[in-house]
Amino acid sequence: MKQIPEEYKSAYTSISSLGEFRLIDHLTKNIPAKRSETIKAIGDDAAVVDLGNGDVEVISTDLLVENVHFDLSYVPLRHLGYKSVVVNISDIVAMNAEPIGITISLAVSSRFSVEALDELYAGIQLACEKYNVDLLGGDTSSINQGMVISVSAIGKGKKDEIVYRNNAKAKDLICVTGDLGAAYAGFLVLDREKAVFLKTPDIQPDLSDYDYAISRQLKPEARLDVIREMKANGVKPNSMIDISDGLASELYHICTQSKKGCNIYANKLPIDWQVGKVAEEFEIGINTFALNGGEDYELLFTVPIEDFQKVKDMKDVHIIGNISEDEHVLQVLLDSGQSVELEAQGWSHFSRP
Amino acid sequence: MKQIPEEYKSAYTSISSLGEFRLIDHLTKNIPAKRSETIKAIGDDAAVVDLGNGDVEVISTDLLVENVHFDLSYVPLRHLGYKSVVVNISDIVAMNAEPIGITISLAVSSRFSVEALDELYAGIQLACEKYNVDLLGGDTSSINQGMVISVSAIGKGKKDEIVYRNNAKAKDLICVTGDLGAAYAGFLVLDREKAVFLKTPDIQPDLSDYDYAISRQLKPEARLDVIREMKANGVKPNSMIDISDGLASELYHICTQSKKGCNIYANKLPIDWQVGKVAEEFEIGINTFALNGGEDYELLFTVPIEDFQKVKDMKDVHIIGNISEDEHVLQVLLDSGQSVELEAQGWSHFSRP
Repeated sequence: MKQIPEEYKSAYTSISSLGEFRLIDHLTKNIPAKRSETIKAIGDDAAVVDLGNGDVEVISTDLLVENVHFDLSYVPLRHLGYKSVVVNISDIVAMNAEPIGITISLAVSSRFSVEALDELYAGIQLACEKYNVDLLGGDTSSINQGMVISVSAIGKGKKDEIVYRNNAKAKDLICVTGDLGAAYAGFLVLDREKAVFLKTPDIQPDLSDYDYAISRQLKPEARLDVIREMKANGVKPNSMIDISDGLASELYHICTQSKKGCNIYANKLPIDWQVGKVAEEFEIGINTFALNGGEDYELLFTVPIEDFQKVKDMKDVHIIGNISEDEHVLQVLLDSGQSVELEAQGWSHFSRP
Repeated sequence: MKQIPEEYKSAYTSISSLGEFRLIDHLTKNIPAKRSETIKAIGDDAAVVDLGNGDVEVISTDLLVENVHFDLSYVPLRHLGYKSVVVNISDIVAMNAEPIGITISLAVSSRFSVEALDELYAGIQLACEKYNVDLLGGDTSSINQGMVISVSAIGKGKKDEIVYRNNAKAKDLICVTGDLGAAYAGFLVLDREKAVFLKTPDIQPDLSDYDYAISRQLKPEARLDVIREMKANGVKPNSMIDISDGLASELYHICTQSKKGCNIYANKLPIDWQVGKVAEEFEIGINTFALNGGEDYELLFTVPIEDFQKVKDMKDVHIIGNISEDEHVLQVLLDSGQSVELEAQGWSHFSRP
């Protein structure tokens, strides 16, 4: 019987010293998958389980923690519910699979009312309807402080149509959907206005100049439309991932797992004009938004060069570079002719102050 | 822009006014399952999804919150990891399905070291090995305070072998596995010793008289052995549930969902002698342990009376009563000849002080 065991305390190896990705690697390295059904366990957007007859199931899970992943002073609960579902569906889509169901577990403090949770579930309902997924189950619990949402999603697909991160080929075209960096721009604006509000609560900000960026932060969508269109066009990517932690981080995953390098053309990065406006206001380089922004939930994928014409004609798909043989060279080519090395910052929840 | 919206606050309808089961009903009533694959969504131990060819997948999820579901002053993290997996596997087993994989999401404050999480994962690993399930994925996040563990489990089975809660038949024999109430007895002892320790930290308690009860609290097992034995013996229950919230609560679920009643014989309830000892010490009636204890993770199931001989001969299965036609009569028959109505208290995390 003891209070909290000494060796559990962070005076030993702190979690932040590892960072999220290395922490997961470290914790799970002794638990390799052993069952014959398991095609992919940890290490991609979702796990893949063989169902026989050429069918597979994909499973993904995400955790959203108040004041780490969301700030209720500017995120309406309805949007939060919607986004919680969408980010998981995005993981299923990134495997080139169709989402079919989700489970939602919720820990909430007694600070919240039933009416607050009704708002959250209204957003969950909207996302379930939009993406035609069923709410299959869940769990609720009280918690001392704050709110934690855990979502798992399952999807189905054909074994030979699933797309992994680790199969990019040299000369593949690198494509992204939609545009990049706007979700982060929206976050910066909302966070700035929150600070203003805390000082001068009487002034309501006019955010109409940032409406697109804010909507990208508050109400992202999963690109189920794109994987369906690719299928209809006979395009199967060699590799794919969704952009949750920023383009640079996702390129890093694809390249290291595929043992390849990449060339990205800065002037090909699709960026909305509102991101340019926010970049100026915050005096941050615009490429930083596109490369390190995160939370866009667009798709990053690579296709054989033979598919050039097919992807070029797809609305909302942009070719931004190509895969190279040398796995040690992940670079961005600037207009000036200079090249800079990609830095995969991603999000590190554990090392934030 | 506002602090926390007024209507989110608990001054409106408080969560505790509904209780956990009614809260889930309330939140999910507008999100009915719509996909043709979904055989069962919310309302059983796990969801059931049709995979075609007579195969189904089952999915369950559970949330464990520090100081709600576990107290780290007496629960070693290794045990916590083990138990987190087992309680989910128990849900899969309660559908008469075989568990195949789990996902684990973890929110931890910076108070914890990597060494602490290593202990947690050592327990997770042990459970994965014991039950032959793969760790398929997960997520980690920081959190301001405490620890939250979210586990989802998937399993597989044959569509016509899945057992639900809502199919108990009049005259069915009611059976439970193992013994009841010991996990709660273990909890009471550990909680008492914690209080003693906080007053007099120098005295280490001797808990050897309670070893069985404590092991039931700290290291429960899922009864995969029992469903396999039943299958081998040609027994298929009409209804089944695992005992996580206490026998009374689980009987209530089976009876209300099956629109039946039940007669339970108090003298048939399997109770370990250590529970008797703890019942005396705490001056709590021993039937309260068996009926309302919770966390035993044994199976409660009903079988046609024709299977009497088969279940009677099964080691560790006890016949404790029978299902009756009248859905308004859920009763316990005492040795004295008196009968008392079953009270399904279950656990109400939200209404605890």
